[in-house]
Order: sequence, then C-alpha cells, then structure tokens
Amino acid sequence: MTGVAPHAAWLPDDAFAAIGSRRVVVAGDGALTATIAEEVAAATARFGGAFSRLDVGDGVSDAELVLTLAPSLVEPVETIEVSTRDASAGSGAAAEVSGIDESFRFMREAGAVVVQAGTDAGLLHGLFHVVRLGETAFDGPDTDETHAPATDLRMLDHWDNVDVHPTMGQVERGYSGGSIFYDNGFVRADLSRVERYARLLAAVGINRVAINNVNVHEHEARLLTDDLGDVVRVAAVFRRWGIRVHLSVSFASPVTLGGLDTSDPLDQDVAHWWVRAAARVWDAIPDFGGFVVKADSEGQPGPFAYGRTHADGANMLAAAVEPYEGLVHWRAFVYDHRQDWRDRSTDRARAAYDHFHPLDGAFSENVVVQVKYGPLDFQVREPLSPVLAAMPHTRVALELQVTQEYTGQQQHAVYLGQQWSQLLGFRFWEPDGVGGGSPTVADLATGRGKAANDPGTGRWRKPAGGFAAVSNVGDDEFWTGHPFAQANLYAYGRLCWDPTLDPGALLDEWVGLTFPGAPDAVGEAVRAVLDRSWETYEQYTAPLGVGFMVRPGHHYGPDVDGYEYTPWGTYHFADRDGIGVDRTVRTGTGYAGQYPSPWSATYESLSTCPDELLLFFHHVPYTHVLHSGKSVIQHIYDTHFEGVSRVEEMIGEWSKVSTLVDPRVSERISERFAEQLRSATEWRDQVNTYFLRKSGIPDERGRTIY
Amino acid sequence: MTGVAPHAAWLPDDAFAAIGSRRVVVAGDGALTATIAEEVAAATARFGGAFSRLDVGDGVSDAELVLTLAPSLVEPVETIEVSTRDASAGSGAAAEVSGIDESFRFMREAGAVVVQAGTDAGLLHGLFHVVRLGETAFDGPDTDETHAPATDLRMLDHWDNVDVHPTMGQVERGYSGGSIFYDNGFVRADLSRVERYARLLAAVGINRVAINNVNVHEHEARLLTDDLGDVVRVAAVFRRWGIRVHLSVSFASPVTLGGLDTSDPLDQDVAHWWVRAAARVWDAIPDFGGFVVKADSEGQPGPFAYGRTHADGANMLAAAVEPYEGLVHWRAFVYDHRQDWRDRSTDRARAAYDHFHPLDGAFSENVVVQVKYGPLDFQVREPLSPVLAAMPHTRVALELQVTQEYTGQQQHAVYLGQQWSQLLGFRFWEPDGVGGGSPTVADLATGRGKAANDPGTGRWRKPAGGFAAVSNVGDDEFWTGHPFAQANLYAYGRLCWDPTLDPGALLDEWVGLTFPGAPDAVGEAVRAVLDRSWETYEQYTAPLGVGFMVRPGHHYGPDVDGYEYTPWGTYHFADRDGIGVDRTVRTGTGYAGQYPSPWSATYESLSTCPDELLLFFHHVPYTHVLHSGKSVIQHIYDTHFEGVSRVEEMIGEWSKVSTLVDPRVSERISERFAEQLRSATEWRDQVNTYFLRKSGIPDERGRTIY
Repeated sequence: MTGVAPHAAWLPDDAFAAIGSRRVVVAGDGALTATIAEEVAAATARFGGAFSRLDVGDGVSDAELVLTLAPSLVEPVETIEVSTRDASAGSGAAAEVSGIDESFRFMREAGAVVVQAGTDAGLLHGLFHVVRLGETAFDGPDTDETHAPATDLRMLDHWDNVDVHPTMGQVERGYSGGSIFYDNGFVRADLSRVERYARLLAAVGINRVAINNVNVHEHEARLLTDDLGDVVRVAAVFRRWGIRVHLSVSFASPVTLGGLDTSDPLDQDVAHWWVRAAARVWDAIPDFGGFVVKADSEGQPGPFAYGRTHADGANMLAAAVEPYEGLVHWRAFVYDHRQDWRDRSTDRARAAYDHFHPLDGAFSENVVVQVKYGPLDFQVREPLSPVLAAMPHTRVALELQVTQEYTGQQQHAVYLGQQWSQLLGFRFWEPDGVGGGSPTVADLATGRGKAANDPGTGRWRKPAGGFAAVSNVGDDEFWTGHPFAQANLYAYGRLCWDPTLDPGALLDEWVGLTFPGAPDAVGEAVRAVLDRSWETYEQYTAPLGVGFMVRPGHHYGPDVDGYEYTPWGTYHFADRDGIGVDRTVRTGTGYAGQYPSPWSATYESLSTCPDELLLFFHHVPYTHVLHSGKSVIQHIYDTHFEGVSRVEEMIGEWSKVSTLVDPRVSERISERFAEQLRSATEWRDQVNTYFLRKSGIPDERGRTIY
Repeated sequence: MTGVAPHAAWLPDDAFAAIGSRRVVVAGDGALTATIAEEVAAATARFGGAFSRLDVGDGVSDAELVLTLAPSLVEPVETIEVSTRDASAGSGAAAEVSGIDESFRFMREAGAVVVQAGTDAGLLHGLFHVVRLGETAFDGPDTDETHAPATDLRMLDHWDNVDVHPTMGQVERGYSGGSIFYDNGFVRADLSRVERYARLLAAVGINRVAINNVNVHEHEARLLTDDLGDVVRVAAVFRRWGIRVHLSVSFASPVTLGGLDTSDPLDQDVAHWWVRAAARVWDAIPDFGGFVVKADSEGQPGPFAYGRTHADGANMLAAAVEPYEGLVHWRAFVYDHRQDWRDRSTDRARAAYDHFHPLDGAFSENVVVQVKYGPLDFQVREPLSPVLAAMPHTRVALELQVTQEYTGQQQHAVYLGQQWSQLLGFRFWEPDGVGGGSPTVADLATGRGKAANDPGTGRWRKPAGGFAAVSNVGDDEFWTGHPFAQANLYAYGRLCWDPTLDPGALLDEWVGLTFPGAPDAVGEAVRAVLDRSWETYEQYTAPLGVGFMVRPGHHYGPDVDGYEYTPWGTYHFADRDGIGVDRTVRTGTGYAGQYPSPWSATYESLSTCPDELLLFFHHVPYTHVLHSGKSVIQHIYDTHFEGVSRVEEMIGEWSKVSTLVDPRVSERISERFAEQLRSATEWRDQVNTYFLRKSGIPDERGRTIY
C-alpha cells in the first residue's frame, strides 16, 4: 500500500453535496441500510443538512429525501425461466432462478424525493442513483420510476496473486501497482483500501467480485481451504456494500490440496471432496458467490486429463455448490496454446465454439459459461465470439477486460465504453447487426430477449449469465494508474446495470462526479480526449482486425512479428504480397461458418466483410481496395499517421484544462500522455516500416517511413 | 545444491591411474605442495602405488615420478616490458610487471619422470600435466621440456548473483542450474562444490576467478564491504588450488555503500573511499586478485555521469589497488543501449573502438581493458573486435563466453574450441589473417608478439592483458547442463595456457580424461559430434554474420525480427529486396575503417569481404552471389536445411556409442539432443519462412518452406 491516500475517484465528498444539504430520512433495517445511514449522516453533517433514521412507515412530513424499505410498494422483479435442451422430453423442467431483488423505485413530487426498495441492496443502489443525479434529482417534474438491473450477475474478476508471481507479478495484467488484497504472500492486515473499493463498486452497481487470479497458483489454491479465514475477512468488507465474494479455484485441488490421486470429475471421492470444500466455504461465508474456473487452458488443469468434458467438470462443481445457490463461472477460453505455426488448418479462433457449442444444454443450471467477447483475447478489434450466439440453452456470461492488457495498459488514454457499447448492442441475427427485433448480445447475456435461433418452441427465454470483467484496479494512488482509466471501471459497472446506456453520457456522469464543481470545459476536454480514444488506439496499433502485433509476454508496444512464429495461434501471415488470415469456409479455416446467418455470409465474402475486420477473415493483397476506397497498404499508412496526430490533438485538448483539476491528477495525466505519444509514435513507425519493407509500396503522400 | 553428487568431469579417479600405480615422491613446502601431496597420496592408495613426501634434495633413487620444488633448475620466466604512450617523454618509464611463476620442467629419463618447478603453483600445473598425459607420461624417449603459460592472466568470470534476480535469476546467462557459490541471498555454508570446481579449474590452468556478476546489484555490491567475510571463505577454497579471487564492483559504491554524494573518480573523498575499501579487502585476503568493472554499460554506473573518461575511472581504482599488485579489469563493452532503430548512422559495433581507442596509453599499468572478441556480443559469428588491434599501449584482455548464451544455451551440443582457436590465431596485419610474422590475437592478449603497428621505435612488446571468459558452470549434476559443454570449459582453460593448442586435440584430451577406459569409438563419436558443431549451429541459426535473430530477453531460439525495432543496436535491415548492415566507410557506418590495413580494405569491399561476414559489413540483394557461387537467399535455405541434417547425423553418431558411457551421462545427452533437433528444426523453418515470405524467391530445390 502506498503512503499516499487513494484518490476519491467518483465519490469525492462533494459528490454528496446535493444530498448532504437536505433533510434526509433513512428508514428500514438490515446491514446495508446501516451503510446507507452512515453515508447520509456523513453527508448531512458535512453540508449542513439534517439526517433522521426512522422505522419504516414512521411520519416523514418535512423530509426532502426519503430512503425507505417498502416491500409492498416495489414491483416484483421479473423472474427468469430456464429451460434445458431436453425440456420437452420432460427430464429437465424449467426452473426458476432468481437473484436478490436489487430494484428500487424513484419518486419525485414537488421537489421531494422518495426512494423505495424491497431490499436494502436495492435501497443502496437507489442512494447512489440520487448521488449520480446530484441536484437534478430534486429538480424537475414529478416522476415515478422503477429501476432494476439488467441482470443480477454483475461481476468483476481480479487476477491478483497472493504470492508475487515470478513473471506475472502481484497482479497478472495489472497496471496499477500492487494488489489491494494481497502483499507479497499475505492477505493485507489493513483492508481499508478494500472497503473504499467496495464503496466505489457499489456506487456503479457491481455486486460480485472474484478476488484471486484465474491462473490459480499453489499458494492461491489454499484460499479455498487453509486460508479461508482470509477470504472471510475480505467477504465481510464487501458485504457491507452488497457485494458477494467469489473465488477462483484450481480444478486439480482434490489432488494438490486434498491428497487424492485424481481430480476426475466423475470420481466419487473427487465429487465428495468438493462437496466438503463447498460446505466449509459456505459455512464460513453464507453469502459466498461461487467458484470461477479456468480449466484446460494455458496449462491450467481440467477435465480433459481424465477424458471428461467441460460439462462433466463444471456440473460436478455445480452440484457441490448448488445447496447454497452458489454459481460456477466456467471460462470458455479453451484452446491449444501449443499450436504449430506451420499448420494453417488449426485456428485458435474456432476453439471456444468447437469445444462448447456441442455442450449446449448439458450444463447444470447454476453453471455460467464465461465467454470472452471475441474469439481470441481482448484485442482492440475482434468480431464477437460466435459462442455467445451458439448456446441458447446455457447461461452465458459476456467477459470483458477493463484492465487494458491489449489497449495501452493504462499508459494510454483509451476509453472502452464505445467498444463495449458496440459489443453489447450487436445483433447476431440482423443483417446490419444493429437494428431489428432479435436479441442483442446484452440480451443474450441478461436473458432479456427472445433468442431467434431457438430450435424448439420459441417460447423460452435464454437463461442469463450476466457480465464479468477483469478489474483494472491496484494500490496505485489513482486506483487505475491512468486517472482516465477510472472511467472504464465506472462505465463497466454502469453498463452491467443497463447495457443500453450511452457511453458518452457515462463519461459525462463520470466527469460530473469525479471533478465536481469543475468548469464545463473540463468535461468537454474529457469528451474530446476520450470519445474517440478507442478508435484512435486502433488506428496506431494493429490494422483492420489483424490483432496481436504486440511484444510477446508483456503485450505492450509493437512487435509485428512478435507472435508470428509462436505456439500461441495468433498469426497474420504477412508476406511480400499480402496479409491476413483466411477464416472463410470456402478456402480457409471455416471459422466464419460458426456465425449464424446472415453474419456467416457477411464475413465469408470479401465484398461484404466490414473493413475493420477484413484481415481477421481474409488474406488479401496489399493492393486490395477497401470499402473506404483506399488500398490496404495505404489504409495502414494513413491510419498510423492519423492515429499519432490524434494523440497530439488529445494532448492539446487536455492542456487547455489541465490546470483546472487537482494538480496531482493533472501531473499523472501529463506523464501518461508523454508516454502515450512516445508509444504511439513507436507503433506508427514500426508498423509502417515493417509493411513498407515487406510490400515495397511507398506511401502515396510521401511521409517519412524508415 | 542438488542432492546428487556432481559428475567428476575430467577428473574421475581413473584419470589418476597412471600416477597412482607408481612410486611417487613429492618434495617441497607450501600450501599447494600439500594439495599435490594429497592428490598423489589418494591416487597411490587407490591404485596400489607408493607415495613419499620428502624435503627438496633428499634421495629419491627408485621413484618413478618425482614432483619437486627446485628453484634453481627452472628457467627464469620471461618478464614483460610495459611502456606507456608517453614513455619517450620520460614521465612513465617502462615498468616490469611479473606474475607468479607458474612454469614447470618435465623431464623423462628411462621411463622415470621428474617434474620440477620454481613455485608450488608451477608444480601443481606439472602434476596435472602428468595426469593429462597418463601412461604416455612415462612412455617414450627421454625428454627435458619447460612448460610455461602464455600469460599469467587466465581468468573465469562468474555472472552469479547472490540474490535471485527478478529477471536474470541466480546466475545471469546461466544454463546449469543454480550458483555453486550462492543460494537465494546467501553464500553457501557448504563450499565443497566450490572446492571440486577449483580442482577442475586448476587442472586446466585457470588461475583467477571473479565470483560475482558484472551487473552488480544492491546486495552483491556489499561483498566488497559488509559481506567481505563471505569472500574470505570462498578465497580460502580457491587458494588451495592456486586460484585468486576477484570481485565485480559497482562504480557507484562510494554513493551506495559509502554514503558519499558522488562517485566522481576525480573527487578526493571518492578516491579515498576506494583506497580504504581496497585496504580492507587485501587485509582480509592478501592474495586477492582485483576488481572487475562494467561501467557506463547497459545501465551500470560509470565515470560518464561525472563527465570523466573511462581512463579517469579505471585509473582511480587502479591507484587504490596498486599497493597490493591488484588489477582492475575494466570492460570495454560500452555502447548506447537506448539507440533509435530509425537512425542508421549510429552503429553499436563502432562503440567500443570509439570509446577506447582514444584512451590508448592513458590507462595505468595495472588496468586491464577487457574486450569481447567481437564488436557486438558473443554471436556465433562476428569479426574480431578492432579494439584488440587498436590499443598497443594498453593491457588488453580477450573476453570469451564459455556459457553458451548465443550458442545454444547448453541445450545444443556446440563445441567452441574451433571458434576460439580461429579468433586466437587471427592476425590483423596479414592479408589472409592466418600466416605471416605479425602478432596473432593471442599475441596481443599475452604480450608475446611484436605489434606491427607500433607507432614508435618498434622495440617494445605489447603489455599483456591475458584472457577472461564467462563461466558455464552451475550446481547442475554435470556442472554445465549438457555434459558436452564441459569440453568448452576444458578447452578454454587449456587455450589460456597455450593458445596454439589444436581444438580437436583438446577434445581428445577431454574425452581421454572424462571417459577413461572407454572404447576408442567413444572418442571418435565425440569428435564426429563436436568437431563441426560450431559451424553446424551457425548453419541453422543466423546466416552470413548477420547475428541476433534470437528471442529478445532470454536469447534462445529464433526470432528474426526480435531485435529489429528495439533500442539495442542490433539490426539486419531485411526488406523485400535484401538484407545486411552497411558498415563500409564509403556508404555505411564506417565501422570497417576501424580495422588496420589490410582488413579495413578487405571488409570494405563487397568483392573481398569473406562470405561468412558478408551481412555484417554489407547490405546486399537476396540475389547477390557469394564467393561460394550461391545466391544469398539460396545460401540461407541450403545452410538451414543442411544444419538440421547435420544435427540428425550428430545424433546418429552418438547413438552408436551412447551405451558405452555412464547411463546418467547418456540419458542427459539424449535429452539434450532431442531438444537440439527440435530447436534446430524451428530455427530452420522460421528463418527460411521469414525469408521466403520476404523475398518471394523459392528454394531452387523445392524443399518445404512454410
């Protein structure tokens, strides 16, 4: 933990000014109501308002804000019907799985606000809704709104290690200092930073946190057993903020921790070992969330070692946690990471679909199959994973990466809200992907839509897997290294609650909370810097969906051939004539055929494949002309020059307002911008030089390439 | 330390059979005479001979082997005249620097052998001479020979860290397990392995060992001060075998250890700090050897920070150690490791010459400027460093790398004897480099020749800097990972003693000692495997002197573009038309001009530059025709296919005899061969594919390229 107090992020004291200056009543019981009362009491003490705590139903005549538990007033939360593939055969009748009711009702009458909720969890969300609105909560016409989250599975995964890992460090893919949970082999004695973190998460709607790396090393595995007491301590902190704790577990635990000679999921001793392990965990942590499992992936153990399927593995765990309504988040990130680069018939992009699509319907109801948004690995541009559309009878979670592994590692200002919004709004069954009545990706993850490819009656809803994402937080002063990277964490939480929110509007929300009282120019500058920052990053890095032109290992900075001859399955096949991966059905790996119609055909055809994914699906000559009218090679040159120019513009925009915010924030942003410009220039020059050397085709505009 | 007893290497008990079965007398005093007596006593006890210890001059009538100190019988060792550049001005009159006399006399009369030496160090070398000869020592015509080392500076450098370094581990560039000296932060309590090592080194003639990494990290720096007691313990072990200990020191020690605010070499407090530090070291270790310094190199501190020259820095240290006849080994490996790959005018190859040539004559007499054999960094093929020829008034040491950083990391069977022999025999001033009367590189390092480019009277001899090399030893069962890598350590020691020895004959010596009693077929197989192994490794890795096509960081395995866009100054500039670095004076970086005539002209001209260094000196089209008659591209394809074929042949040769040696040795060799074949195939395919993709020119023979 650094000696400096952590930055307040989007909950500075001044964010509570509107509440704090009013007469506020909090009514109700429960742990979270106590949390709410503490927040309100502190705010009113600070800003001169008045705070009363009453029982539900007591008179509250002159209150300007009432936060009250009122079960009878709240609409029942929609339940989610789950069916399994063989439901019609009668063997798996539809079951109801309902989460905690987190909805709340927001009523304004003549400037006085009442927030009601059926649970104290819902009431806490209502409080933060009022915080976000600020003065506008009390300003405007009378209203009566009910707010409910799109899904009750809104999760953040921490890739934190207890022991510092020899190559991956304290936090795998962490770019924000050390872990807030662990310090060099121990769970921290002082969890005050975790408490602050939980509060920030609650304020954006996150309700589940997995606290250790999905790559479960030896020491970390013991969180499940010997070190469970540490998890109890962490869970107690999160509980005060309505957040459940999950653990990543090693599939080999029965062997490594239990001393059994197998981890075969069909072995009864193994199953019983997990039953006992789960019993101990829930005994210690009654609201424990469940297990996250990375199995048979990048060296992690899994059911393949015993000739079992991933459904066998997941269901065995699911049975162990089922009595406690626990979940098993089972990652679909399964592929051959010892591929032979010489073999162009193997395609890593196909792997998740090939492994999991045949298992649709075979997973237990409390298994969530967690699917990375793209078929590879969190690149700046990938098509959506076809697995998301291919498992109508399975709870599928969309997995995002808030930590900027491949998007600038929190050295670069890259706001991912637009990317996520695009992904969430994509419709697999519509020709243009954005209109029409078939489900969006968000619908598929939240169970809110009707699946168009239902092979059965068309009556069922898709079971919900919700959202998961890798956190970008560490013990850095600003939590996220780059202060602007806070906006990604903010946006992720908000989009989990409501995937239809506008990412630009979320930036405005974030600015309003984070820089309260700052001149409008600050918000305008943040928008000018961040609105197109994802697109800008794409411009100066890997073109046209080709991906993975990064330095192997740490994944920062350019290395066009860095992964070209490796076992990782991430190639571009550039030669002196052209570039790209043929993933068509007709002549390539067949990956395009994993999409439902019409996208299978759209991607298959060179004439209809979108420019931004051209090299993901096709190998083309450098002279191929894009829909944009430019050749591929000229597109590469132009976007790389333009990307760097845009970074210069971003820096210019920010410089206009940099003195208007906290000097510490300003100094950090300025340091990061210097690095971003250096790095973007390096990307531009390396990528352009590589392709000029290879293609021999000069830049039409004669700019400097080396 | 592993639990398994270390392999006997070239000193198995049976290597002493010829001595042990005879009547042996050891006569004389001194610590090393006691060591000799122990060796002989053990051997005679084992093999049924007889051992007597007498005073010098006592009757030894029936002895078959006499090892005796006999100062009067030994020829005086040639002294080395040292002159400084301004000797003629009278300010630096020629001084004599003489090392310990390590020569011995070997006399055989009617099958009885007498070894005489003026010092017990010489006598120890005489003992091991007899061990190496075995039965042939006693067999043959009467003889009377005097043996003396080519130089008294025959050094091994250990890049061992006391603390495990986060990226470099316990031994930087170590491929043989942990350190024999250190274990995770401590000097080992049990130094028995060091004792065995010292014995092995003594048997091949090494007489100086630097025991810590030239990259001196925080903990390691304290060996000079707080942890000096540990060095005393290590030195005591080596002393029994006639070997002096040196330490790598940090130039910043006055600041980091002494608490001064500067390490400026011209600051009197700094100089005095070093004077006191040296006094403490020699007070504790009277035969301490001196300091090794990597300054202003790859992030290590140095005199540049204070606007001083390397002569200023080295001479300040030299003054501190001069009262004890201590040496300062000052590395010439100084270059800009933050180069801009876009800037083709900067040439790392030029750096050592540019920094050090102007300082010739400015270094104190007890400074040795330690020069890597090539201008870059221990590549499988580089031209010799022009610094070796450019400092006639400076003690210059030739630095080699026994540890196989760039030559297969002891996974590949690569015998470096032939490379070193070529380097040692090269003559900078002769048209063909191998004949003529001007000095060889060995002469330049040992002071045995007359420098042809003497700007003065022509009377002087070059002062001697001797040899240094990075050790390849660790706590591995076989010392060196690959059992065959023992041969490199063996050959290095023997070539230090006599640089004219034939590297093939040294392999025979090594086999004879290491596999005593094995059938002749074993020796033949070793020769068949190793004789051309260096050339074979060159074939399947980086062609025509281009170098550095390795994975960044660990430097194992291929990555053609791995260093192409990095700050390290190691580029090949391959594009679709051609490859190579133009280092000519006329159109390139001018590096070729750093050589004396005729080599400056030979390298400058495309028509005379040797094929094997073509791409080091010239950028040429892939279609350029070599002296061999092949095009560059066809040469690349052919050598890569042939290299792998040769590895297969090596494996075939060894398989004929693998059952004739210790099964543990055989098993290890077999494991390593499997990896060598895998790796060589990977090299072949990646390099060929890279150049086919880039050049578009197919293999004339139509072999598979991907």
